[in-house]
Amino acid sequence: MQIPMNNIFYPKSIAVIGASSREGALSYELISNLIRYGYKGKIFPVNPKADSVHSIKSYKSAIDIDDKIDLAVIMVPRELVLRTIDDCAMKKITSVVVITAGFKETGKAGSEIEKKLTEKINKYSMRLVGPNCMGIINTNPNVRLNCTFVAGTPLNGGIGFISQSGALGAAVLKTVQQNDIGMAQFISIGNKADVSGNTVLEYWKNNDDIKVITVYLESFGNPRMFMELTREITKTKPVIVIKSARTSAGMKAASSHTGALAGSDAVVDAFLEQSGVIRVNSINDMFDLAKGFDKTSLPKGNRVGILTNAGGPAILAVDECANNNMAIPELTSGTQEKLRSFAPAEASVFNPVDLLPPADSDMYAKAARLMLSDKNIDSLIVILGPPLMLDTLEIARSICDAVKDSDKTVMLVLMSQDDIIPKLKDIITVYPPIFRFPEDAARVIAKMFEYKKWKEHPEGRYIKFDAKKDTVRKILRKYHSKPGIYLEYDDVYRILHAYGMPLVISYTANDTDGVVEAAAKLKYPVVIKAAGKNLVHKSDIGGVEIDIHTEVELKKAIGRINENLKTKKLTEEFEKYIIQPYIAGGIETILGITKDEKAGHMIMFGLGGIFVEVFKDVNFKLVPINDEEASRMIRSIKSYKMLTGARGRQSVNIDFIKENLLRLSQLSEDFPVFKEIDLNPFVFFDEEEKCRILDARIRLS
Amino acid sequence: MQIPMNNIFYPKSIAVIGASSREGALSYELISNLIRYGYKGKIFPVNPKADSVHSIKSYKSAIDIDDKIDLAVIMVPRELVLRTIDDCAMKKITSVVVITAGFKETGKAGSEIEKKLTEKINKYSMRLVGPNCMGIINTNPNVRLNCTFVAGTPLNGGIGFISQSGALGAAVLKTVQQNDIGMAQFISIGNKADVSGNTVLEYWKNNDDIKVITVYLESFGNPRMFMELTREITKTKPVIVIKSARTSAGMKAASSHTGALAGSDAVVDAFLEQSGVIRVNSINDMFDLAKGFDKTSLPKGNRVGILTNAGGPAILAVDECANNNMAIPELTSGTQEKLRSFAPAEASVFNPVDLLPPADSDMYAKAARLMLSDKNIDSLIVILGPPLMLDTLEIARSICDAVKDSDKTVMLVLMSQDDIIPKLKDIITVYPPIFRFPEDAARVIAKMFEYKKWKEHPEGRYIKFDAKKDTVRKILRKYHSKPGIYLEYDDVYRILHAYGMPLVISYTANDTDGVVEAAAKLKYPVVIKAAGKNLVHKSDIGGVEIDIHTEVELKKAIGRINENLKTKKLTEEFEKYIIQPYIAGGIETILGITKDEKAGHMIMFGLGGIFVEVFKDVNFKLVPINDEEASRMIRSIKSYKMLTGARGRQSVNIDFIKENLLRLSQLSEDFPVFKEIDLNPFVFFDEEEKCRILDARIRLS
Repeated sequence: MQIPMNNIFYPKSIAVIGASSREGALSYELISNLIRYGYKGKIFPVNPKADSVHSIKSYKSAIDIDDKIDLAVIMVPRELVLRTIDDCAMKKITSVVVITAGFKETGKAGSEIEKKLTEKINKYSMRLVGPNCMGIINTNPNVRLNCTFVAGTPLNGGIGFISQSGALGAAVLKTVQQNDIGMAQFISIGNKADVSGNTVLEYWKNNDDIKVITVYLESFGNPRMFMELTREITKTKPVIVIKSARTSAGMKAASSHTGALAGSDAVVDAFLEQSGVIRVNSINDMFDLAKGFDKTSLPKGNRVGILTNAGGPAILAVDECANNNMAIPELTSGTQEKLRSFAPAEASVFNPVDLLPPADSDMYAKAARLMLSDKNIDSLIVILGPPLMLDTLEIARSICDAVKDSDKTVMLVLMSQDDIIPKLKDIITVYPPIFRFPEDAARVIAKMFEYKKWKEHPEGRYIKFDAKKDTVRKILRKYHSKPGIYLEYDDVYRILHAYGMPLVISYTANDTDGVVEAAAKLKYPVVIKAAGKNLVHKSDIGGVEIDIHTEVELKKAIGRINENLKTKKLTEEFEKYIIQPYIAGGIETILGITKDEKAGHMIMFGLGGIFVEVFKDVNFKLVPINDEEASRMIRSIKSYKMLTGARGRQSVNIDFIKENLLRLSQLSEDFPVFKEIDLNPFVFFDEEEKCRILDARIRLS
Repeated sequence: MQIPMNNIFYPKSIAVIGASSREGALSYELISNLIRYGYKGKIFPVNPKADSVHSIKSYKSAIDIDDKIDLAVIMVPRELVLRTIDDCAMKKITSVVVITAGFKETGKAGSEIEKKLTEKINKYSMRLVGPNCMGIINTNPNVRLNCTFVAGTPLNGGIGFISQSGALGAAVLKTVQQNDIGMAQFISIGNKADVSGNTVLEYWKNNDDIKVITVYLESFGNPRMFMELTREITKTKPVIVIKSARTSAGMKAASSHTGALAGSDAVVDAFLEQSGVIRVNSINDMFDLAKGFDKTSLPKGNRVGILTNAGGPAILAVDECANNNMAIPELTSGTQEKLRSFAPAEASVFNPVDLLPPADSDMYAKAARLMLSDKNIDSLIVILGPPLMLDTLEIARSICDAVKDSDKTVMLVLMSQDDIIPKLKDIITVYPPIFRFPEDAARVIAKMFEYKKWKEHPEGRYIKFDAKKDTVRKILRKYHSKPGIYLEYDDVYRILHAYGMPLVISYTANDTDGVVEAAAKLKYPVVIKAAGKNLVHKSDIGGVEIDIHTEVELKKAIGRINENLKTKKLTEEFEKYIIQPYIAGGIETILGITKDEKAGHMIMFGLGGIFVEVFKDVNFKLVPINDEEASRMIRSIKSYKMLTGARGRQSVNIDFIKENLLRLSQLSEDFPVFKEIDLNPFVFFDEEEKCRILDARIRLS
């Protein structure tokens, strides 16, 4: 059962508990901000010692307040927090924001209190934001809630922002105000004792005030739920995330900061990508992009028109477009002719359209309208270099007016003239997103188009293959009391075949005679490998001999293997020989499963050999995957071209790779007991029946 | 003979020719800016119709001025420019800036006039900036020259900025003012009829006012000279370049804009990297970095300390450091103890040092001093999240004061509080570079450290090997009248061997008997290839058979090749068979030479096969290269690990690759007539004597 979040963001009355009457105190500033931003509800300060706070009648305790209270903001010292919660419960307050710090983030003693706090909250069925947080903002004109201690006037817009770091949240709030970025709601989630990023995401999913969601995260409490939630949300609203601690050095700092263990970056990338979340690396990138989503429509295609009064900036925009797979097509000849009729003689009317410095407000407006109605373009970047003798404000107003009814994507670049934005706002209400440099506008359009494609990509189907579940279940019984162990090769063979995955035919033998006999059954050429539970990297230790054509060669090969084991002092670890057919050619891939502590099972795909060893060219997804995701896994590796037949090579059967990824996903979903499955190498050819897994390992959790 | 640039940047008197007395006119604004910025010299307006301009006595013609004129700024209509130059010559003015547009950038008629302009300038031995440019700025307190029509007060600093685009220059000037970036000198080079980017670079090389050079370029007039100049300059001053038109789409826009043909991007990257120039992709990046170079010292090592009052921002800094190969070491225990003695109980004193929100000006100052004196760190990033109850200005002042005498690198991050910079400047004069977000500071430190390493890298020696130049000369005589042709294989063999490069021993034969005989001489296994002037991609057409062990196999192979040629209708193109020893194993590389129209000969290195075909993993340098550059070429490819022995593989002889690169460089330097040389594949082993070029092509210009 979900406890609603409405009272957090849309409270009609607020009790500020621990409200100081001393100017400059945190709680005083918070009330001050509530009042100055014009909160539409009622404020009730609670302070056992004061009679009034900030000219408002004050109460000894929350219980003393006569009115119904939607939200309590708790700023009392840490020792008093638990008792205050009891008061709130008695007053039937269901939603609280605990600003007070000194909990989990400070060590063991704080963790203990936080645990008790959570217990109390659960007992009372309350919603709690924090502790150790910075508050809530809602710019909805009917609410006007600035329940933080960041002074200022947050601009109304469609962006929701969740911050796990209070300080970062505060800085961002100042930045967005300075950069004309419109917020809808902001929440500082602090220690996430109750309300987490996921709670807010779920709430914002159907909140019409929120057009685009931005998130700053240091750790994921429940990555799988995050993925499932965002996978739904991104179908209608973009979600942009800065997940910090991307690197191991960063992770160390993060865990000393929040006590939360950050997941490895491959996992994070996997489930962000899988859920259509846009990951950015800097705060600037996040809000540039959010502004785009908030203030203009999604590009319908990748064709960008550029209108400018200066060549240099247009080139920078063209470059950035091209680097991000956007096209700069020529305009239709009709548009070109019409442009020619009023543009300066030396203007360029292809694309970019360069009206040169004489471009005035009329010319800009006409050209913008013409370009927006050109069937060759989907988006328009209007660049206004500092005009020489003309009034920037007037030109900007005229451009905004010309583009405001278009359903195409429009960006305005006021080159270093963002100081005119406040003036522009005084004279018009609707304007496109405004950027300082053309590169930024181009990059944002490209990312918006990426999202557009994500939104429209086919849903994907979860396919179930016939599989001999019982066989696997029976095999696993053997290993019942052996966690962490690698399965025996024969069992690996049977499990994979039970799920229709073609591990190569394989015989074992304990001595030379056995090997020779097995090879005869298989037909030459064969491969021979030394096997043993602890003989893991067989090739590295000289335990593998390939392409053996005759019995003589075979005996020599056995000799070499034995010699190598002896030299490496591994004779003790040797258990038996494995003899397999030698399969030449094809393309080596790796398919695998690994279990992440927090995110659960993940499936991996990549090309084998140097592609994984040197280039780390692999893709991860959370299990289970659908057919679309399997396809995307294959296409998204950098060496994808190798599979489709790079120069002179044959292409391999992509559909069959996909099928095997889905079968592997199904196996790990049916049997979560596996910690690791490695099909390495899995050799693919064009002909399905030739494809073989040449080696495989399975390990239990 | 070089004509000096001093009068351009440090004129003691300026004639503004074509000075309008009408407020709002371009020339009026320019004079206005000169006056308002407080130009230390004398201004002489020239206007045949006015008696005074902007309260200054005006002259009918430059000739009428009594004083000596250092610089003439020409703003007359295009038709009058040539005549005005004559006047200037008569008045013995040696330096002119032509603002007037309408020249090469507008087409053929304009180009004609520009040609005449250049001729005149050369005749009179004048220096000319422009035409079609935006002017000059020099912020030196003894000069104070704002000779542009961009209003405002450029801040004094150590940055020189060359802009090929006037509009971009104007926008940048506004931006740097808004962002506390100190300019030394600015020049808009316009059409580069005389003064080019290279001229300015050479002038700034020994100009003490310039600490760091920034350049916006759309095209290179003389890339080789640019490389030679910047290679010298970067030994003492950093050079940062935005070269736009990085992509083919961008290039199209660029050439329609300036008429100049942009070089291909690989060439540009090659010579920028080779000369230590830092290439950036956006204006923001350029000036963030320039600010760092201008306002703090170079990092001595890669170890960064971070001081903060908020965890989140510190993590973003740690992340960015780690992503850019910078380390975040622990502080010495001594420093940790001392920090502990005054930091809040819950502060973190490792690294990042997090003093938490209570951090006041004293604490920040003490901690900053302690960290800067810690032997474990080379650079310090001080992050100031919006303090809650404290005075940001006071803390910032205190930090600036604490760090001002350190010779370590220091960056200050005022999270979204750059509005306090103007106030800070009112109370102190020396402060470190200030950034809005921690990621920016971290990235700048990392790039500064990259430059530091560049500055200190060994110079490199140009090595000359003994080579049989005469042999090559004799061979080339044969091809005297055959430009563009591919040399015959025998000649390729002799040329490479003349320069000590091990092209594989090779016999040719016209028929099966000849092939069999040749193979017997070589010893099996052998390779056989079909050769012919027009049989270029031999493998693709089935013209190559490898690993042939016996005469029987050999005859079958010949049959298959003939069959393939027949099927592909290439029998006519066949000239002969080439028989070579079969060399198995080793690592395939490509060494090559290609001639760029503008930049001249370039040498290329990369791994063969898929590395070049799929990953385009190659490195280019301009010829000649020295031994250091050869080493860097090898190390800088992504697949470098393949050469040093990725898992289980043997490493190859890197020194021998280097030697062959140098030999190839020498060959193309000695014989510039080659358009292309391809040694592909060149197989390397650990043993020098096993390394072989398996195929090679040479083409003449």
